[in-house]
Amino acid sequence: MSKAWHLIRRPQGLPSRDDFALRELPDEPLEADQLRIRNLWLSVDPYMRGRMNDAKSYAAGFQLDQPMTGGAIGEVLESRMEGFAPGDLILHMGGWRDGGIIGLDMMPNRLPADLLATGLSPQTFLHNMGLTGGTAWIGLLRIAAARPGDTVFVSAAAGAVGSAVVQIAKAREMTVIGSAGGAEKGRWVDDLGADAVIDYKAGPVLPQLAAALERLGKPGIDVYFDNVGGEHLDAAFATANDFARFAICGMIDVYNDGKAQEMSYLVRTIPARIRMEGFIYTDQFIDCAEEFYADMGGLIASGAVLMRETVRDGLDAAPDAFLGLFSGENIGKMLVRL
Amino acid sequence: MSKAWHLIRRPQGLPSRDDFALRELPDEPLEADQLRIRNLWLSVDPYMRGRMNDAKSYAAGFQLDQPMTGGAIGEVLESRMEGFAPGDLILHMGGWRDGGIIGLDMMPNRLPADLLATGLSPQTFLHNMGLTGGTAWIGLLRIAAARPGDTVFVSAAAGAVGSAVVQIAKAREMTVIGSAGGAEKGRWVDDLGADAVIDYKAGPVLPQLAAALERLGKPGIDVYFDNVGGEHLDAAFATANDFARFAICGMIDVYNDGKAQEMSYLVRTIPARIRMEGFIYTDQFIDCAEEFYADMGGLIASGAVLMRETVRDGLDAAPDAFLGLFSGENIGKMLVRL
Repeated sequence: MSKAWHLIRRPQGLPSRDDFALRELPDEPLEADQLRIRNLWLSVDPYMRGRMNDAKSYAAGFQLDQPMTGGAIGEVLESRMEGFAPGDLILHMGGWRDGGIIGLDMMPNRLPADLLATGLSPQTFLHNMGLTGGTAWIGLLRIAAARPGDTVFVSAAAGAVGSAVVQIAKAREMTVIGSAGGAEKGRWVDDLGADAVIDYKAGPVLPQLAAALERLGKPGIDVYFDNVGGEHLDAAFATANDFARFAICGMIDVYNDGKAQEMSYLVRTIPARIRMEGFIYTDQFIDCAEEFYADMGGLIASGAVLMRETVRDGLDAAPDAFLGLFSGENIGKMLVRL
Repeated sequence: MSKAWHLIRRPQGLPSRDDFALRELPDEPLEADQLRIRNLWLSVDPYMRGRMNDAKSYAAGFQLDQPMTGGAIGEVLESRMEGFAPGDLILHMGGWRDGGIIGLDMMPNRLPADLLATGLSPQTFLHNMGLTGGTAWIGLLRIAAARPGDTVFVSAAAGAVGSAVVQIAKAREMTVIGSAGGAEKGRWVDDLGADAVIDYKAGPVLPQLAAALERLGKPGIDVYFDNVGGEHLDAAFATANDFARFAICGMIDVYNDGKAQEMSYLVRTIPARIRMEGFIYTDQFIDCAEEFYADMGGLIASGAVLMRETVRDGLDAAPDAFLGLFSGENIGKMLVRL
């Protein structure tokens, strides 16, 4: 009998384990256009916090007392869906569970056999070759239109998305300043090739960012890749060069507390002609999937983009893995291995 | 002997008359590529407040103890510049003075004779056919890419730029909600054809904006044209439809006090995929001047865009006219007539 995590209460502020319950899924015969699967890897991502709200935050919020969804890598056990056969490895949205029945609404895709043959691990399609790597690639290159020679500032640079941004930017000959919390994460960002690293836990962001720019001999930033909002975003406004572009991917600083953000430098939007744009991976991915797979696959194969995973074991660990995102437990991609 | 207003002290917060001094200009023989002129109309605009700061706010700040500059309409008295003859009416940047010598750096342009022949008054080139109308047109149609059917929110809708935005948007079959302070300005915005008018002095902006949207049967705004920042901008984030575009033209709310803006809804940038962009007229104008003159000239000739001016008389009145912008004294364009 398969089990799935259900959202049983809408969190106020930071979620707790009591907001979730592990429940059995009904065991039914397979209908047309369905797959029976077992999951191997589950993804937990900060954006899921938004889907736990009732508000019309994201189009598709989680329903109460229903299985939650999210990225997962599974193996097909039984198929009544064209193009899928037992043994296939698939990327799909039926996460937060160890297996069961999924339909077309969970968007199953077979992992590309040619890419797996190059030695990529299946769970890579949950991070650098999937949601987080794709988010980094789209945000940096499409939304912010970053170019070689640009100075790029990225927050949560040790996280799954941020670490991909750092590495893609370095591979494209940009100057990169990464912000991360604490010495261990900072060393990882440094290892990734960032030209300067800021520790936001060691003091205010803006003076550290200004000092890093001065050390690097740069007048300001051309691109900001935002994962956190708040103080980091304000520091980006303060140091933006003319015609700077901000790709707004996340604001983990405010997902839980919902506090107002105090923006002292937002007014620089006008004299510096800053363009700030929010984006969501799924809006953009289909249009650029082929180019992304080719480019990112090459960067991984060449060693330009390194992998790092923080792994929790077992379906029971999924809520704690998710909650760990908000206390900064992960370096690289947080994953649940089943 | 000509006279010009000089900036003699950098204002802290709201400027005062004591920051300015009226001084005589040297009377010298005309050199090559110079014009001797007398001014007929001077423009005072909120953006000039930024140029009074020492900070690297705008590229070209005013120098202390030098004549200030700004848009003006003048008549050529004597010319050693090719293409200009005595009697020509010109638009140029040598404002804040009653006349004197100007060179190419003041960007003199003859007013288009064909447009004057249609009955346009010369000072129209300081507002609807110039800086403020051009700012409205570029921000609405180019930066925000507003389309027929869009719901547009505009702040300072009774001001020179805002009133042009309202009218261009209505001429393009958009739904328009304008915000203005007080009953008299509200009536003017209503006369301009806005579908709903908010009085920000009567209460908080967001509930009024939400109520207006509900009355109009609209789920949110597609475009925000920002002249003020602060509470208006936050209300725009709160009510933005997916893929909304914000053209950020000004933030008069924060030009003087420089206080942090409390943004409670900035986080909606991501789920709603909002694009916010700051812009400056002069970056864009040359590329679209011809299209703008044709389009705006047609809108004025057809009566779709009405004029309104708040006029102060005499060079002595220039600082007070400027200061009046920050206490909301103007309906339509604030001008100084010499």
